[in-house]
Amino acid sequence: MPNPTAAMLVIGDEILSGRTRDSNMHHLAGQLTRHGIVLKEARVVADEQPAIVAAVNALRAAHDHVFTSGGIGPTHDDITADAIAAAFGVTIDVRDDARAILAAHYAQTETELNAARLRMARIPDGARLIDNPVSRAPGFSLGNVHVMAGVPSVFEAMVASVLPTLTGGDPLLSQNIRVMRGEGEIATALGALAAEFPDLSFGSYPFVRDGVYGTNLVVRGTDAVRLDAAMLRLSAMVETA
Amino acid sequence: MPNPTAAMLVIGDEILSGRTRDSNMHHLAGQLTRHGIVLKEARVVADEQPAIVAAVNALRAAHDHVFTSGGIGPTHDDITADAIAAAFGVTIDVRDDARAILAAHYAQTETELNAARLRMARIPDGARLIDNPVSRAPGFSLGNVHVMAGVPSVFEAMVASVLPTLTGGDPLLSQNIRVMRGEGEIATALGALAAEFPDLSFGSYPFVRDGVYGTNLVVRGTDAVRLDAAMLRLSAMVETA
Repeated sequence: MPNPTAAMLVIGDEILSGRTRDSNMHHLAGQLTRHGIVLKEARVVADEQPAIVAAVNALRAAHDHVFTSGGIGPTHDDITADAIAAAFGVTIDVRDDARAILAAHYAQTETELNAARLRMARIPDGARLIDNPVSRAPGFSLGNVHVMAGVPSVFEAMVASVLPTLTGGDPLLSQNIRVMRGEGEIATALGALAAEFPDLSFGSYPFVRDGVYGTNLVVRGTDAVRLDAAMLRLSAMVETA
Repeated sequence: MPNPTAAMLVIGDEILSGRTRDSNMHHLAGQLTRHGIVLKEARVVADEQPAIVAAVNALRAAHDHVFTSGGIGPTHDDITADAIAAAFGVTIDVRDDARAILAAHYAQTETELNAARLRMARIPDGARLIDNPVSRAPGFSLGNVHVMAGVPSVFEAMVASVLPTLTGGDPLLSQNIRVMRGEGEIATALGALAAEFPDLSFGSYPFVRDGVYGTNLVVRGTDAVRLDAAMLRLSAMVETA
C-alpha cells in the first residue's frame, strides 16, 4: 500500500516578513517521516482569508492530510479558524466543549475569560478538538485538515496529540554517505544507480566546509533490504569513482 | 505606488523529508523586506517536474517576482532548469556563455568539465544569467522567475547579485514592543487600534519563556510618521491595558 501523503500550511505574516524563522515545518517533516506519511508540499501564506481559503482547498483536495500552523490565538489577526470554516462552507461559533476547557484553565490561573480569549473557543461545525497540554486552547481537525497553533511548543504538543490518531504507512527509512568530493564527480554513476533502483529515492546534497566541497548522498525508501543493497553498491561506487 | 509582490519556491525532497532545515526562505524574506518587495507566499515542493511546473506557473502569474532555490546542480535529481523551461514552454540546451564560465572555473581548479558538470550550463532559451561568485555555476532569470541554487552560501550570493537589478518599493518598516503579558489581555485594545490605522499592519506574536507568557507586538508599514504615531498609541495602550 502506498504511503499516505500530506501537505503543510504555515499561516503568518511574521514568517513572510523575515521577522520570525519558522521551525514548525522542519519538526512536522521529521515526525511525518517517522510515521510513514509523505510530506509532498508545504506553503506559507499571509494572514489573509482569501489566501488561506485557496491554499486549504487546493491542498486538502490533493493530499490525504493537511496540517496548518498559526493564527488560532485571541487577537484580530488570528483568522485561521474562520478561514477554515469558510473553506469548508460550514458555520463557526463558540462551542461549549472548547469554552469549558478555557473556563477551567483560566479559573485555575485566576485570569478573566474575556471576549478576546473566548474567540479561541470558536470551532467550525463538525470539527474534532485537538488536545493542547501546554496552554489548553485547543486545535481542531475538520475533515482531513488539522489546525494547530503557531507557537512551536504548542504546535509540537498538538502534533503529538493528533499523529497517533492517523493511519500511517511503512516508516520512510533513509541511509546516507558523506563524501568529501564535489557532486559533479559522482553524478553520472549516481544517476545510473538511481535508475537501477526505481523503488528508492536517491538524493545528492552538496555542501562547502572550510572551502572544501563535499556531498551527502541519501537513499530513501520503505524496504530495508533494498535500502541495504543500494547502500552496498553506493559505497563501492564512491570508493572507485 | 504599491510595493511589488513576490513568491518563493523551494525545490527539494530533503526539506520535505525533514533531513535538512531550509534557511533560504528566512534569508530571502529579510532581504526582500529591506528592498521594499512584499513576500506574499512561499511553497516547498518535491524534486518532481509536474509539481515544479504547476507551482512556477501559479506563482509567476500571481506575483511580480518569483524566486526559486534548489535543484540546479549536476546530479540526476537536479531538474529545476528543465522544469522552468517546460513551465515557460521554451527549449533548453547547454549555452555557450554558461559553458565558458564553467570551463574557465574548472580549468583553474584543474578539474574535468565532464558531462554531469556540463548539465549546469543548460539554460532555458531567453534567460539571463545570474552571477555566482561562490562556485561559478550560474543561476538564471527567465521572465519574472529567478532561479538560484539551494546551498545557502550560493543562494545568498545569487540573491545579492539579482536583487539590485529589480525595482523595489518603499522599504517596509517595522517597530515592535515586547510585553510580558498574554496576548488575550491586550487583544481587544489592539484590534481597535489596528482598525484606526488601516494603512499599517498590526501583528501579535505570543511566546512562552521560563513558563511566563509574553507577546511581541509588531507594527509594519512604509510611512515612518504613521508608524511613529501608532507606536505612541500602542505604548500608552500597553501601559494602561
